[in-house]
Amino acid sequence: MFSFNLTHTDGAARAGVMTTPHGVVETPAFMPVGTQGAVKAMTPRLLEDAGAAIILGNTYHLWLRPGAELIARRGGLHRFNGWSRPILTDSGGYQVFSLAARRTVEEQGVHFRSHLDGSAHTLTPERAVEIQACLGSDIAMVLDECPPHPSPKDALATSLQLTTRWARRCRARLQELRAGDTVQGLAPTNPGQAQFGIVQGGVHADLRAESAGQLAGLDFEGYAVGGLSVGEPNELMYEVVGGVAPRLPVGKPRYLMGVGTPADLIEAVDRGIDLFDCVLPTRNARNGQLFTRHGPLNIKNARYAEDDAPVDSSCACYTCTHFSRAYLRHLYISGEITSSILNTVHNLSFYLDTMRLIRHAIAFGTFPAFKQEYLSALRVRPFAS
Amino acid sequence: MFSFNLTHTDGAARAGVMTTPHGVVETPAFMPVGTQGAVKAMTPRLLEDAGAAIILGNTYHLWLRPGAELIARRGGLHRFNGWSRPILTDSGGYQVFSLAARRTVEEQGVHFRSHLDGSAHTLTPERAVEIQACLGSDIAMVLDECPPHPSPKDALATSLQLTTRWARRCRARLQELRAGDTVQGLAPTNPGQAQFGIVQGGVHADLRAESAGQLAGLDFEGYAVGGLSVGEPNELMYEVVGGVAPRLPVGKPRYLMGVGTPADLIEAVDRGIDLFDCVLPTRNARNGQLFTRHGPLNIKNARYAEDDAPVDSSCACYTCTHFSRAYLRHLYISGEITSSILNTVHNLSFYLDTMRLIRHAIAFGTFPAFKQEYLSALRVRPFAS
Repeated sequence: MFSFNLTHTDGAARAGVMTTPHGVVETPAFMPVGTQGAVKAMTPRLLEDAGAAIILGNTYHLWLRPGAELIARRGGLHRFNGWSRPILTDSGGYQVFSLAARRTVEEQGVHFRSHLDGSAHTLTPERAVEIQACLGSDIAMVLDECPPHPSPKDALATSLQLTTRWARRCRARLQELRAGDTVQGLAPTNPGQAQFGIVQGGVHADLRAESAGQLAGLDFEGYAVGGLSVGEPNELMYEVVGGVAPRLPVGKPRYLMGVGTPADLIEAVDRGIDLFDCVLPTRNARNGQLFTRHGPLNIKNARYAEDDAPVDSSCACYTCTHFSRAYLRHLYISGEITSSILNTVHNLSFYLDTMRLIRHAIAFGTFPAFKQEYLSALRVRPFAS
Repeated sequence: MFSFNLTHTDGAARAGVMTTPHGVVETPAFMPVGTQGAVKAMTPRLLEDAGAAIILGNTYHLWLRPGAELIARRGGLHRFNGWSRPILTDSGGYQVFSLAARRTVEEQGVHFRSHLDGSAHTLTPERAVEIQACLGSDIAMVLDECPPHPSPKDALATSLQLTTRWARRCRARLQELRAGDTVQGLAPTNPGQAQFGIVQGGVHADLRAESAGQLAGLDFEGYAVGGLSVGEPNELMYEVVGGVAPRLPVGKPRYLMGVGTPADLIEAVDRGIDLFDCVLPTRNARNGQLFTRHGPLNIKNARYAEDDAPVDSSCACYTCTHFSRAYLRHLYISGEITSSILNTVHNLSFYLDTMRLIRHAIAFGTFPAFKQEYLSALRVRPFAS
């Protein structure tokens, strides 16, 4: 049900086709974040129009509300939220470690209290797999420990061992479900679901190598790099990505979690990454920051009050082909919901267009020139890969 | 540029075609309210998909922010907000009388302070015309005094005389603009703009008749009934509408301002009304109240948590054809912006579908049976017209 085929490479950059039970995804791909079962201020139709091929759903949020089993009884997340193309779900771990209260980690799993109502919950590797089986995403992530940044190297070394043990338990639980086991009597809603492992190890090349090596032995359908973009300098993030990517199986997709700016995406693709997710385009849209080929633009700025130009004259999105900066500023200043819609349409279209340009450049073997030109227009200094 | 042709009548109910500089509107028609230059939680494309033919813009809001002249310099409201079909603007009076602070009325106009920043402004009949000339709506409304409800009959009688004098001044100022005058050097952005008078007189048939008679002499392109749906019983509103409509010129459109529920629309059509606007479908959508053929439904109710049915199984809107009550409840409970979008799409589609059904029934001569059946499904008692 799940497969990944590389179609082109250009240096370390890769273009490929990822096939999932809900359709194909051309890579490198960016996944808009649909935290609570909806990409904020969008509808599935607006997402398709913007060029989204795959979205991300947050296991933590959906588990706590409306509940994993409730979604399973509806037939899974795709039928529930009306997005019929591929979905990747995270494990819930990241939100437990960043959002939940009073969390304690032990070998068995993480105990925590809901940020919604303070209720007590335990997320174990097995439960993370079961919740995602209920959601029926096309790609499920293993539960990993997300140590705070910065953490001492010895703490990171201990943590990645736990992450590997949890990854093994996740893999085992998925195999049981694949063999016919159920979750509280409910069959997994997407029998073809793939599972990705998550490499940890902070900014330490040796720990990343150790983590990657351990996970490769578990034969996941894909591999993610977690624990980056948490405050470390960009250059260091690129260095870590450049070090770990070659240690991941060449024939499987590589996912850099929670990254990043347009420049980050290009630098990471240049180091062999295939998949991304980030709240930046959607969250910043709601805050009035719009991405353009020449860098971000803050639409609330008074200089745009009588500016009849579109946000980005080279953008073909619905927002840029129908509305001026002056109107978008007015909507933002006036607190209109339509501001969030139109800004999100633009920012996501911009990100997804960038990914399309990246894929084309790799296919044509012109990625280095594309990178140089794109970053130069952004006035961002490129980093050698 | 502006014309109105009756195509069918069925009792007092009328079907017609209103031609404006930005296209035709089949009547009876409902106008979604775009308070600040956008219908809340919608885009022009979503509005067209929902079946909107004409929208309303609020002069008070657009005048104070971003400013009438700013919009004129952009080429008018249509070019500013990307809605290329007809627009009706109110005069600003209703908001001055309901929203602004420290207002004082005198012969010249209304002095008030902005609800946004407390700044002092004066709205005169001439200024109301000029602002709407800047906005370039297809239909502009005259400035009327909106007395509080309830008001003593003698106060209403005095007030309607002022409204008539203001209407005369509005007509005169429009004629000057039509003859080539400008607003601070700016030409009207829609030379074919029509102007409607507003009948006042509270719930008193004799005052309404007096007001209608005075305004008819000013030869407006259309006539509105103002000052209703302000707390009086439904039956009384229908009675007033039924009394005043026959006193308006038969060949011109009749607009009942700020009304109402689906049942109100049908009762008013049955008394000869052609145009409506109301915030009910959009505002209630954002509050989780969804209109259906069988009455309103509160989507936050726990009974919908696992309800896989659409909001209204006979509705063909994007929301009803793609999403369940369970999902819409989840979005509402989770505070997602997407909830406002999908709920507004449904409520507006429902209203606009109702108008379409009304037009068809009048054209087929089956309006009385349609009314009976529609109100019976809503469990609303019909009132004899």
